[in-house]
Amino acid sequence: MTGSITEGQTFCGAVDVGGTKIASSLFTRDERMLHKNKVAIDRNGPEKSVIQIIDIIKNLEQHAHTENGKIGAVGIAIPGVVFHAEGLVWAPNIPGWDHFPLRSKLEIKVQLPMVLDSDRSAYVLGEQWCGAAKGKKDVVYLAVGTGIGAGILMDGRLCRGCADIAGAVGWFALNADFRDEYAAMGCFEAEAAGPSVAKRTVRLIKSGEASILEEMVEGRLDDITAEKVVQAAQKDDCVAQKALESTIQYLAMGIANIVSILNPEVVVLGGGLFQAGEILIEPVRKEFKKWAQPLAAQRVRLELSHLGEDAGLYGAGKLAWDTI
Amino acid sequence: MTGSITEGQTFCGAVDVGGTKIASSLFTRDERMLHKNKVAIDRNGPEKSVIQIIDIIKNLEQHAHTENGKIGAVGIAIPGVVFHAEGLVWAPNIPGWDHFPLRSKLEIKVQLPMVLDSDRSAYVLGEQWCGAAKGKKDVVYLAVGTGIGAGILMDGRLCRGCADIAGAVGWFALNADFRDEYAAMGCFEAEAAGPSVAKRTVRLIKSGEASILEEMVEGRLDDITAEKVVQAAQKDDCVAQKALESTIQYLAMGIANIVSILNPEVVVLGGGLFQAGEILIEPVRKEFKKWAQPLAAQRVRLELSHLGEDAGLYGAGKLAWDTI
Repeated sequence: MTGSITEGQTFCGAVDVGGTKIASSLFTRDERMLHKNKVAIDRNGPEKSVIQIIDIIKNLEQHAHTENGKIGAVGIAIPGVVFHAEGLVWAPNIPGWDHFPLRSKLEIKVQLPMVLDSDRSAYVLGEQWCGAAKGKKDVVYLAVGTGIGAGILMDGRLCRGCADIAGAVGWFALNADFRDEYAAMGCFEAEAAGPSVAKRTVRLIKSGEASILEEMVEGRLDDITAEKVVQAAQKDDCVAQKALESTIQYLAMGIANIVSILNPEVVVLGGGLFQAGEILIEPVRKEFKKWAQPLAAQRVRLELSHLGEDAGLYGAGKLAWDTI
Repeated sequence: MTGSITEGQTFCGAVDVGGTKIASSLFTRDERMLHKNKVAIDRNGPEKSVIQIIDIIKNLEQHAHTENGKIGAVGIAIPGVVFHAEGLVWAPNIPGWDHFPLRSKLEIKVQLPMVLDSDRSAYVLGEQWCGAAKGKKDVVYLAVGTGIGAGILMDGRLCRGCADIAGAVGWFALNADFRDEYAAMGCFEAEAAGPSVAKRTVRLIKSGEASILEEMVEGRLDDITAEKVVQAAQKDDCVAQKALESTIQYLAMGIANIVSILNPEVVVLGGGLFQAGEILIEPVRKEFKKWAQPLAAQRVRLELSHLGEDAGLYGAGKLAWDTI
């Protein structure tokens, strides 16, 4: 962590490609974010999104120039998988990014060193650089939103696995009683991701249990979201609390499995569902101890993400700095 | 992988401390085992076992000398945990090895470079050096015997975790319906380790189901072991097969969790239970695909250990070679 804006004048560019938006920024080596911009992703085919990313990088270069500096490298986080050997990306939410040669497409127009990685790798790197796991070497970032995935740092190095898909913990088997939904998304994701919280609540309401959620969505049960279930639970709604109880147990089991196999120092909890904060995290902390290897459970901290939606941006910045 | 007995004349010493026996050997850099010896462990207190290990190392030195060579380093595998920063070992089956300063005790009498590690780290290193995962970088060794544990290599490096206890997969939470036994040993171990196979079978027999096992143990149900259950299953005994079915499902779930989170190229299956061979492994291979992340499941090989009881010895040898 040496250097700053006044000495050397080198910045790193960071581009965090999300499912709907692209965020970008410049970072100094001493962790300062100089610039932040956000645009909606152009969904008219893969070439359009490439042009958009190239424009974003050109803008970052100009910005670095106005700060009397230059960009040393650019980190790019992808909402999916980066196949490093092939230079291909797969991102289910971006039209046409199915084993798409993003790296070579960008290299035609961008002369800077570039490093691409998955969003979950970026999240864990970002939190380790500047967030909830600052300076730690064995860290897992668990993202629970519409899906579930993890970024893993062991002894300070990213774990990618043999096909760049390590961290697919949404597939954790946590319930011996196999249900059909597990085949499409994995057991942990089917039982604990945001949509499952909403689904479970709707099921309880349909079975006849009364809930303030019906009023909250004016009878349109399809409008129930995990966020609304959390709100209702905070207002002591029994149905919402019951639905969350089951979610809490599965989250605790999934986190316990991560802790038992990897013995991390910190598990950072991020993604939409954990925006619920204490109502979710306190009972998860308590329940997870029941399941995890006891010494590993004692040594780990479960922390909410400090960087929130900027974790990917910080991680992209760190990816870039690590290449220089 | 260069050098051999004829050039350089350097060997590595390997000591594999088990719960009941200590095996030792010399290795050339090109993977040849020159010597193998095995003695019962002296159980009269920790100092006795230290003297024994020192004697074993002296014997290895003499043997190297008679081969016109010398020992470059010694690797020692421990049936428990090695706390690297403190130089302490914990091995539940060896009297007095509870945070015992084995390294410093040995260093008083042994001038050679020594490297200590857990048996599960040694197993995975051994299989990667000379066994079922030869030359692979992302490898997990899953040991299922009286207990369950894993050794993990990611990108060619051992994963130890922040407190040297990574790989405690016996604690995997696989059944949401918590049972009291889980508190002592973890859910996966309670459901799938050797003793659980025997217990489950006894439970079925006591509930009135007829089995050839009763005859095999002459009515002494306490004498039923996992090994005998496997033998009975091979003879088409329905009770034994039913008991194994449940074991197979839990093994498949545990292996699926390893594969989903780590995306390894090979999972090596070792330990007493997997000596059952095909009757266990074929159904596990089939069932695990139901649970694991599909691409990771497609990319991984599940292989029986090639080195068997020598895996720890090979691993200790490789640990030593890696320090030179």
